[in-house]
Amino acid sequence: MSKVFFDVAVSLAGYIAGPNRGPRNPLGDRGTSVHHWMFQTATFRKMIGMQGGDTGADDAVVGAVFERSGAYVMGRHMFEEGEVGWPEDAPFHAPVFVLTHTAREPWPRKGGTTFHFVTDGMKNALEQAKAAAREKDVRISGGAQTIRQYLKAGLIDEFTLHVAPVILGAGVSLFDHMAPGDFEAQQLAVIPSPLATHITYRIAR
Amino acid sequence: MSKVFFDVAVSLAGYIAGPNRGPRNPLGDRGTSVHHWMFQTATFRKMIGMQGGDTGADDAVVGAVFERSGAYVMGRHMFEEGEVGWPEDAPFHAPVFVLTHTAREPWPRKGGTTFHFVTDGMKNALEQAKAAAREKDVRISGGAQTIRQYLKAGLIDEFTLHVAPVILGAGVSLFDHMAPGDFEAQQLAVIPSPLATHITYRIAR
Repeated sequence: MSKVFFDVAVSLAGYIAGPNRGPRNPLGDRGTSVHHWMFQTATFRKMIGMQGGDTGADDAVVGAVFERSGAYVMGRHMFEEGEVGWPEDAPFHAPVFVLTHTAREPWPRKGGTTFHFVTDGMKNALEQAKAAAREKDVRISGGAQTIRQYLKAGLIDEFTLHVAPVILGAGVSLFDHMAPGDFEAQQLAVIPSPLATHITYRIAR
Repeated sequence: MSKVFFDVAVSLAGYIAGPNRGPRNPLGDRGTSVHHWMFQTATFRKMIGMQGGDTGADDAVVGAVFERSGAYVMGRHMFEEGEVGWPEDAPFHAPVFVLTHTAREPWPRKGGTTFHFVTDGMKNALEQAKAAAREKDVRISGGAQTIRQYLKAGLIDEFTLHVAPVILGAGVSLFDHMAPGDFEAQQLAVIPSPLATHITYRIAR
Protein backbone atom coordinates (compact mmCIF):
# COMPACT_ATOMS: atom_id res chain seq x y z
CA MET A 1 0.00 0.00 0.00
CA SER A 2 1.10 3.50 -0.76
CA LYS A 3 2.94 5.18 2.14
CA VAL A 4 3.33 8.80 3.16
CA PHE A 5 6.86 9.70 4.13
CA PHE A 6 9.36 12.47 4.54
CA ASP A 7 13.08 12.37 4.02
CA VAL A 8 15.50 15.00 5.32
CA ALA A 9 19.20 15.47 5.92
CA VAL A 10 20.05 16.68 9.43
CA SER A 11 23.10 17.89 11.30
CA LEU A 12 24.27 16.16 14.49
CA ALA A 13 21.94 18.45 16.43
CA GLY A 14 18.95 17.79 14.17
CA TYR A 15 19.07 20.98 12.10
CA ILE A 16 17.85 20.69 8.51
CA ALA A 17 19.06 24.18 7.58
CA GLY A 18 21.53 26.64 9.03
CA PRO A 19 20.99 30.09 10.54
CA ASN A 20 20.30 33.28 8.56
CA ARG A 21 18.01 31.68 6.00
CA GLY A 22 16.52 33.92 3.36
CA PRO A 23 15.59 34.08 -0.32
CA ARG A 24 19.25 34.24 -1.33
CA ASN A 25 20.36 31.75 1.33
CA PRO A 26 17.62 29.08 1.29
CA LEU A 27 19.61 26.44 3.23
CA GLY A 28 21.07 28.95 5.70
CA ASP A 29 24.73 29.37 6.58
CA ARG A 30 26.60 26.14 5.90
CA GLY A 31 23.25 24.45 5.29
CA THR A 32 24.62 22.75 2.20
CA SER A 33 26.98 20.75 4.43
CA VAL A 34 24.17 18.44 5.58
CA HIS A 35 23.68 17.48 1.91
CA HIS A 36 27.33 16.90 1.15
CA TRP A 37 26.83 13.10 1.06
CA MET A 38 24.14 13.58 -1.63
CA PHE A 39 25.94 16.06 -3.85
CA GLN A 40 28.58 13.43 -4.61
CA THR A 41 26.14 10.85 -5.90
CA ALA A 42 25.69 9.94 -9.56
CA THR A 43 21.89 9.95 -9.18
CA PHE A 44 21.77 13.48 -7.78
CA ARG A 45 24.23 14.75 -10.38
CA LYS A 46 22.12 13.23 -13.14
CA MET A 47 19.01 14.94 -11.73
CA ILE A 48 20.66 18.33 -12.07
CA GLY A 49 22.06 17.54 -15.51
CA MET A 50 25.63 16.63 -14.55
CA GLN A 51 27.62 13.53 -15.34
CA GLY A 52 29.77 11.28 -13.16
CA GLY A 53 29.55 10.92 -9.42
CA ASP A 54 29.76 8.16 -6.82
CA THR A 55 27.67 5.00 -7.07
CA GLY A 56 27.96 3.55 -3.56
CA ALA A 57 25.53 3.35 -0.63
CA ASP A 58 24.64 7.05 -0.71
CA ASP A 59 23.77 6.84 -4.39
CA ALA A 60 21.51 3.84 -3.80
CA VAL A 61 19.74 5.79 -1.03
CA VAL A 62 19.10 8.80 -3.28
CA GLY A 63 17.92 6.55 -6.10
CA ALA A 64 15.53 4.62 -3.85
CA VAL A 65 13.90 7.80 -2.51
CA PHE A 66 13.41 9.11 -6.03
CA GLU A 67 12.02 5.76 -7.22
CA ARG A 68 9.47 5.36 -4.45
CA SER A 69 8.08 8.89 -4.82
CA GLY A 70 4.99 8.93 -7.04
CA ALA A 71 3.85 12.40 -5.93
CA TYR A 72 4.94 15.20 -3.62
CA VAL A 73 3.30 17.59 -1.17
CA MET A 74 5.07 20.86 -0.46
CA GLY A 75 4.49 24.02 1.57
CA ARG A 76 4.14 27.41 -0.07
CA HIS A 77 7.49 28.76 1.18
CA MET A 78 9.41 25.80 -0.21
CA PHE A 79 7.63 26.16 -3.53
CA GLU A 80 8.29 29.90 -3.75
CA GLU A 81 11.99 29.38 -3.04
CA GLY A 82 12.11 26.60 -5.60
CA GLU A 83 10.13 28.51 -8.20
CA VAL A 84 13.08 30.85 -8.67
CA GLY A 85 15.77 28.27 -7.93
CA TRP A 86 14.84 25.06 -9.73
CA PRO A 87 15.82 24.56 -13.34
CA GLU A 88 13.09 24.49 -16.02
CA ASP A 89 13.38 20.71 -15.82
CA ALA A 90 12.30 20.67 -12.15
CA PRO A 91 13.81 17.84 -10.09
CA PHE A 92 10.59 15.95 -9.23
CA HIS A 93 9.43 14.34 -12.48
CA ALA A 94 6.04 13.69 -10.87
CA PRO A 95 3.01 15.68 -9.68
CA VAL A 96 3.72 18.13 -6.85
CA PHE A 97 0.84 19.42 -4.71
CA VAL A 98 1.57 22.84 -3.23
CA LEU A 99 -0.30 24.01 -0.11
CA THR A 100 -1.36 27.60 -0.70
CA HIS A 101 -4.14 30.11 -0.16
CA THR A 102 -3.91 31.47 -3.71
CA ALA A 103 -5.65 29.57 -6.52
CA ARG A 104 -3.52 29.09 -9.61
CA GLU A 105 -3.67 26.94 -12.74
CA PRO A 106 -1.48 23.81 -12.74
CA TRP A 107 2.05 24.60 -13.87
CA PRO A 108 3.64 21.84 -15.98
CA ARG A 109 7.41 21.81 -16.35
CA LYS A 110 9.73 19.90 -18.61
CA GLY A 111 10.54 16.35 -17.56
CA GLY A 112 7.19 15.40 -16.06
CA THR A 113 6.88 17.70 -13.04
CA THR A 114 3.52 19.45 -12.73
CA PHE A 115 2.82 21.76 -9.81
CA HIS A 116 -0.79 21.69 -8.62
CA PHE A 117 -1.94 24.42 -6.23
CA VAL A 118 -4.25 23.20 -3.47
CA THR A 119 -6.28 25.77 -1.56
CA ASP A 120 -8.59 23.49 0.43
CA GLY A 121 -6.23 22.19 3.04
CA MET A 122 -3.48 19.72 3.83
CA LYS A 123 -5.74 16.67 3.96
CA ASN A 124 -7.13 17.29 0.50
CA ALA A 125 -3.65 17.91 -0.84
CA LEU A 126 -2.55 14.56 0.54
CA GLU A 127 -5.58 12.76 -0.90
CA GLN A 128 -4.85 14.23 -4.34
CA ALA A 129 -1.19 13.24 -4.03
CA LYS A 130 -2.12 9.69 -3.02
CA ALA A 131 -4.41 9.35 -6.03
CA ALA A 132 -1.71 10.71 -8.33
CA ALA A 133 1.01 8.47 -6.85
CA ARG A 134 -1.03 5.31 -7.60
CA GLU A 135 0.94 2.38 -6.11
CA LYS A 136 3.98 4.55 -5.33
CA ASP A 137 4.54 6.55 -2.13
CA VAL A 138 3.83 10.20 -1.38
CA ARG A 139 6.70 12.32 -0.16
CA ILE A 140 6.02 15.31 2.07
CA SER A 141 8.87 17.40 0.72
CA GLY A 142 8.93 20.19 3.27
CA GLY A 143 9.62 22.65 4.63
CA ALA A 144 9.92 21.84 8.29
CA GLN A 145 6.61 23.47 9.17
CA THR A 146 4.72 21.44 6.58
CA ILE A 147 6.35 18.20 7.73
CA ARG A 148 5.47 18.96 11.36
CA GLN A 149 1.89 19.72 10.34
CA TYR A 150 1.52 16.26 8.78
CA LEU A 151 3.35 14.58 11.66
CA LYS A 152 1.07 16.18 14.25
CA ALA A 153 -2.00 15.21 12.23
CA GLY A 154 -0.86 11.57 12.32
CA LEU A 155 -0.64 11.38 8.52
CA ILE A 156 2.98 10.20 8.17
CA ASP A 157 3.82 6.49 7.92
CA GLU A 158 7.61 6.59 7.68
CA PHE A 159 10.52 8.99 7.66
CA THR A 160 14.20 8.90 6.89
CA LEU A 161 16.89 11.00 8.55
CA HIS A 162 20.22 11.33 6.80
CA VAL A 163 22.44 12.16 9.78
CA ALA A 164 25.45 14.12 8.54
CA PRO A 165 28.53 14.57 10.74
CA VAL A 166 28.27 18.35 10.78
CA ILE A 167 27.59 21.13 13.26
CA LEU A 168 25.52 24.09 12.08
CA GLY A 169 25.35 25.80 15.48
CA ALA A 170 21.79 27.05 14.92
CA GLY A 171 19.11 27.01 12.26
CA VAL A 172 15.89 25.17 11.49
CA SER A 173 15.23 22.22 13.79
CA LEU A 174 12.77 19.72 12.37
CA PHE A 175 11.63 18.36 15.71
CA ASP A 176 11.49 21.59 17.64
CA HIS A 177 7.91 22.34 18.62
CA MET A 178 7.15 18.61 18.62
CA ALA A 179 6.11 17.10 21.94
CA PRO A 180 6.67 13.53 23.18
CA GLY A 181 3.05 12.56 22.55
CA ASP A 182 3.01 13.75 18.94
CA PHE A 183 4.32 10.48 17.59
CA GLU A 184 6.24 7.34 18.45
CA ALA A 185 8.85 6.00 16.08
CA GLN A 186 10.39 2.58 15.58
CA GLN A 187 13.54 1.97 13.62
CA LEU A 188 12.95 0.21 10.32
CA ALA A 189 16.34 0.27 8.63
CA VAL A 190 19.82 1.76 8.98
CA ILE A 191 22.16 2.24 6.03
CA PRO A 192 25.63 3.54 6.90
CA SER A 193 27.97 5.20 4.46
CA PRO A 194 31.24 7.00 5.15
CA LEU A 195 29.51 10.38 4.77
CA ALA A 196 26.18 9.92 6.55
CA THR A 197 23.98 7.48 8.44
CA HIS A 198 20.61 6.92 6.82
CA ILE A 199 17.98 5.87 9.36
CA THR A 200 14.42 5.04 8.42
CA TYR A 201 11.69 5.04 11.05
CA ARG A 202 8.11 3.83 11.06
CA ILE A 203 5.54 5.86 12.96
CA ALA A 204 3.88 3.64 15.53
CA ARG A 205 0.08 3.99 15.70
CA MET B 1 47.38 5.01 21.89
CA SER B 2 44.91 5.95 24.55
CA LYS B 3 41.96 7.98 23.22
CA VAL B 4 39.71 10.56 24.82
CA PHE B 5 36.04 10.05 24.03
CA PHE B 6 32.51 10.74 25.09
CA ASP B 7 29.48 8.56 24.65
CA VAL B 8 25.91 9.81 24.98
CA ALA B 9 22.39 8.73 24.12
CA VAL B 10 20.37 11.36 22.25
CA SER B 11 16.81 11.85 21.09
CA LEU B 12 15.98 12.43 17.41
CA ALA B 13 16.49 16.14 18.01
CA GLY B 14 19.82 15.70 19.80
CA TYR B 15 18.63 16.07 23.39
CA ILE B 16 20.54 14.09 26.01
CA ALA B 17 18.05 14.91 28.78
CA GLY B 18 14.47 16.12 28.88
CA PRO B 19 12.99 19.37 30.20
CA ASN B 20 12.48 20.21 33.89
CA ARG B 21 15.71 18.67 35.13
CA GLY B 22 16.46 18.91 38.81
CA PRO B 23 17.92 16.99 41.75
CA ARG B 24 14.90 14.68 41.86
CA ASN B 25 14.59 14.47 38.06
CA PRO B 26 18.22 14.22 36.85
CA LEU B 27 17.37 13.04 33.31
CA GLY B 28 14.43 15.44 32.91
CA ASP B 29 10.92 14.53 31.81
CA ARG B 30 10.97 11.34 29.75
CA GLY B 31 14.77 11.55 29.73
CA THR B 32 15.02 7.86 30.56
CA SER B 33 13.50 7.07 27.15
CA VAL B 34 16.78 7.85 25.34
CA HIS B 35 18.40 5.09 27.44
CA HIS B 36 15.66 2.50 26.87
CA TRP B 37 17.93 0.51 24.49
CA MET B 38 20.56 0.26 27.27
CA PHE B 39 18.27 -0.64 30.18
CA GLN B 40 17.41 -3.92 28.42
CA THR B 41 20.98 -5.11 28.12
CA ALA B 42 22.54 -7.85 30.22
CA THR B 43 25.71 -5.80 30.73
CA PHE B 44 23.88 -2.78 32.11
CA ARG B 45 21.67 -4.94 34.32
CA LYS B 46 24.74 -6.67 35.69
CA MET B 47 26.34 -3.27 36.44
CA ILE B 48 23.39 -2.33 38.63
CA GLY B 49 23.24 -5.73 40.27
CA MET B 50 20.41 -7.29 38.28
CA GLN B 51 20.32 -10.55 36.37
CA GLY B 52 19.13 -11.41 32.88
CA GLY B 53 18.71 -9.01 29.98
CA ASP B 54 19.35 -8.96 26.25
CA THR B 55 22.67 -9.98 24.75
CA GLY B 56 22.41 -8.60 21.20
CA ALA B 57 24.00 -5.62 19.46
CA ASP B 58 23.03 -3.11 22.17
CA ASP B 59 24.60 -5.28 24.83
CA ALA B 60 27.85 -5.53 22.86
CA VAL B 61 27.89 -1.72 22.54
CA VAL B 62 27.47 -1.20 26.29
CA GLY B 63 30.12 -3.80 27.04
CA ALA B 64 32.62 -2.28 24.63
CA VAL B 65 32.25 1.21 26.10
CA PHE B 66 32.76 -0.17 29.59
CA GLU B 67 35.77 -2.24 28.49
CA ARG B 68 37.59 0.60 26.76
CA SER B 69 37.20 3.04 29.66
CA GLY B 70 40.26 3.05 31.91
CA ALA B 71 39.39 6.32 33.65
CA TYR B 72 36.66 8.96 33.66
CA VAL B 73 36.43 12.75 33.81
CA MET B 74 33.24 14.27 35.13
CA GLY B 75 31.82 17.72 35.89
CA ARG B 76 30.86 18.74 39.38
CA HIS B 77 27.10 18.76 38.72
CA MET B 78 27.11 15.23 37.38
CA PHE B 79 29.13 14.05 40.35
CA GLU B 80 26.84 15.76 42.85
CA GLU B 81 23.78 14.19 41.27
CA GLY B 82 25.49 10.81 41.22
CA GLU B 83 26.81 11.11 44.77
CA VAL B 84 23.27 10.74 46.05
CA GLY B 85 22.02 8.49 43.26
CA TRP B 86 24.71 5.88 42.61
CA PRO B 87 24.84 2.71 44.67
CA GLU B 88 27.73 2.18 47.09
CA ASP B 89 29.24 0.00 44.37
CA ALA B 90 29.45 2.96 41.93
CA PRO B 91 29.09 1.97 38.26
CA PHE B 92 32.59 2.96 37.04
CA HIS B 93 34.98 0.42 38.54
CA ALA B 94 37.88 2.74 37.63
CA PRO B 95 39.30 6.11 38.72
CA VAL B 96 36.96 9.07 38.17
CA PHE B 97 38.39 12.60 38.07
CA VAL B 98 35.85 15.22 39.15
CA LEU B 99 36.28 18.85 38.06
CA THR B 100 35.62 21.03 41.08
CA HIS B 101 36.71 24.15 42.95
CA THR B 102 36.57 22.45 46.33
CA ALA B 103 39.51 20.30 47.42
CA ARG B 104 38.53 16.96 48.92
CA GLU B 105 40.29 13.71 49.75
CA PRO B 106 39.91 10.89 47.23
CA TRP B 107 36.74 8.91 47.85
CA PRO B 108 37.10 5.17 47.21
CA ARG B 109 33.94 3.13 46.67
CA LYS B 110 33.29 -0.57 46.57
CA GLY B 111 34.11 -2.32 43.31
CA GLY B 112 37.12 -0.28 42.25
CA THR B 113 35.68 3.20 41.69
CA THR B 114 37.69 6.01 43.31
CA PHE B 115 36.60 9.63 42.90
CA HIS B 116 39.50 12.09 42.72
CA PHE B 117 38.72 15.79 43.07
CA VAL B 118 40.72 18.02 40.72
CA THR B 119 40.86 21.73 41.47
CA ASP B 120 43.52 22.83 39.01
CA GLY B 121 41.58 22.72 35.77
CA MET B 122 40.25 20.52 33.00
CA LYS B 123 43.62 19.92 31.33
CA ASN B 124 45.20 18.63 34.50
CA ALA B 125 42.19 16.45 35.18
CA LEU B 126 42.56 14.92 31.73
CA GLU B 127 46.29 14.35 32.18
CA GLN B 128 45.67 12.56 35.47
CA ALA B 129 42.93 10.47 33.87
CA LYS B 130 45.21 9.53 30.96
CA ALA B 131 47.94 8.43 33.34
CA ALA B 132 45.44 6.39 35.37
CA ALA B 133 43.88 4.79 32.26
CA ARG B 134 47.25 3.44 31.07
CA GLU B 135 46.65 1.84 27.67
CA LYS B 136 42.87 2.15 27.95
CA ASP B 137 40.78 5.17 26.89
CA VAL B 138 39.52 8.11 28.92
CA ARG B 139 35.81 8.77 28.89
CA ILE B 140 34.53 12.30 29.44
CA SER B 141 31.37 11.24 31.22
CA GLY B 142 29.49 14.54 31.24
CA GLY B 143 27.42 16.54 31.78
CA ALA B 144 26.84 18.36 28.54
CA GLN B 145 28.75 21.46 29.64
CA THR B 146 31.85 19.45 30.53
CA ILE B 147 31.75 17.57 27.22
CA ARG B 148 31.42 20.86 25.29
CA GLN B 149 34.33 22.31 27.25
CA TYR B 150 36.62 19.46 26.14
CA LEU B 151 35.25 19.54 22.59
CA LYS B 152 35.93 23.26 22.26
CA ALA B 153 39.42 22.81 23.67
CA GLY B 154 40.15 20.24 20.95
CA LEU B 155 40.82 17.50 23.49
CA ILE B 156 38.32 14.87 22.25
CA ASP B 157 39.42 12.17 19.78
CA GLU B 158 36.17 10.28 19.25
CA PHE B 159 32.55 10.28 20.28
CA THR B 160 29.58 7.96 20.04
CA LEU B 161 25.95 9.01 19.72
CA HIS B 162 23.28 6.45 20.51
CA VAL B 163 20.39 7.87 18.49
CA ALA B 164 17.14 6.74 20.08
CA PRO B 165 13.84 7.01 18.19
CA VAL B 166 12.25 9.31 20.73
CA ILE B 167 11.03 12.90 20.94
CA LEU B 168 11.65 14.80 24.18
CA GLY B 169 10.30 18.12 22.92
CA ALA B 170 12.86 20.15 24.86
CA GLY B 171 15.73 19.62 27.27
CA VAL B 172 19.51 19.59 27.25
CA SER B 173 21.01 19.74 23.77
CA LEU B 174 24.58 18.52 23.61
CA PHE B 175 25.54 20.51 20.54
CA ASP B 176 23.74 23.73 21.33
CA HIS B 177 26.27 26.51 21.82
CA MET B 178 28.67 24.71 19.51
CA ALA B 179 29.62 26.54 16.34
CA PRO B 180 30.57 25.05 12.95
CA GLY B 181 34.25 25.79 13.46
CA ASP B 182 34.46 24.09 16.86
CA PHE B 183 35.17 20.67 15.39
CA GLU B 184 34.82 18.54 12.29
CA ALA B 185 33.71 14.96 12.57
CA GLN B 186 34.08 11.91 10.36
CA GLN B 187 32.07 8.76 10.73
CA LEU B 188 34.07 5.83 12.02
CA ALA B 189 31.47 3.13 12.59
CA VAL B 190 27.72 2.57 12.65
CA ILE B 191 26.07 -0.22 14.62
CA PRO B 192 22.32 -0.54 14.17
CA SER B 193 20.02 -2.31 16.56
CA PRO B 194 16.22 -2.38 16.61
CA LEU B 195 16.16 0.14 19.48
CA ALA B 196 18.89 2.66 18.56
CA THR B 197 21.55 3.55 16.03
CA HIS B 198 25.04 3.73 17.48
CA ILE B 199 27.27 6.07 15.48
CA THR B 200 30.91 6.65 16.33
CA TYR B 201 32.72 9.71 14.99
CA ARG B 202 36.36 10.70 14.88
CA ILE B 203 37.23 14.35 15.40
CA ALA B 204 39.19 15.55 12.38
CA ARG B 205 42.21 17.67 13.22
